[in-house]
Amino acid sequence: MVGEPKFEELWQKYKALGGEFKEFKKLNLKPEIGVEIKYEKKITEVDLHMFGLVSGDLQPLHFDEEYASKTRFKGRVAHGMLTTSLVSAPFAMLEGTVILLESHFKYLAPVRIGDTVLVKCVISEKDEKGRFKSNVECYVGEKKVVDGWVKFLVDSD
Amino acid sequence: MVGEPKFEELWQKYKALGGEFKEFKKLNLKPEIGVEIKYEKKITEVDLHMFGLVSGDLQPLHFDEEYASKTRFKGRVAHGMLTTSLVSAPFAMLEGTVILLESHFKYLAPVRIGDTVLVKCVISEKDEKGRFKSNVECYVGEKKVVDGWVKFLVDSD
Repeated sequence: MVGEPKFEELWQKYKALGGEFKEFKKLNLKPEIGVEIKYEKKITEVDLHMFGLVSGDLQPLHFDEEYASKTRFKGRVAHGMLTTSLVSAPFAMLEGTVILLESHFKYLAPVRIGDTVLVKCVISEKDEKGRFKSNVECYVGEKKVVDGWVKFLVDSD
Repeated sequence: MVGEPKFEELWQKYKALGGEFKEFKKLNLKPEIGVEIKYEKKITEVDLHMFGLVSGDLQPLHFDEEYASKTRFKGRVAHGMLTTSLVSAPFAMLEGTVILLESHFKYLAPVRIGDTVLVKCVISEKDEKGRFKSNVECYVGEKKVVDGWVKFLVDSD
């Protein structure tokens, strides 16, 4: 799927630097009201670096332990939008081509390097144009770190 | 700021693979109602790969040109949440430690490899607890690709 060797190498580098690589697989699952999808991924240091490079958010709260130790978080935390980027994956696993239309997230608590984030989604609505709405919750252990929803549509392949 | 050589190397790799690296700098700018911040970044292929690895969204719409050519987009597009990850950067550049509380985005049009995204933010509200709200718009040329807002707070350093 990756195609070019330079990107194959990048994927290997992600694993070598401790990133939790998850083989992408389409689930045999059509979106319908009531469908629940769960997705879990560990946030590691390489995730903060890659997200920082992509987004351009390289502020010391995410990269400088000494600076971060003096903030309210008493240490480095992941970018809020890094945590919610994980929400993209479970929807992508539904049958068809999944197109994100809208997202709304509340960032409730910090996520730290080494935390495993569990994303729980339950499809709650479908409108007359076939657009879905799903609740989204992210947890680290028992603690809810993100609460929100997304709207999406699905084109059949 | 990066510290360990293995991550220094990753930053170099990002540049070598065509990523637009932006040196992170705090602006001499306090958040206040009416303050406008702009931020621009080019989305390249390495961004899609890094965002895919971090999020776990490795669906073929983003990585397989042949598959993507048969979708409504007629070619590969960036993850919606990759585009909005860029919103993290301009707020991080404000004075102090910026903490994201809430985000709401509508994804209006696809962003393709090679597109330069301009993020425009205007702070519109401040509540009694010192929390700010800012409008957010993302453009590719004249075309608005994202419309939304974020809420955040700022701790002084």
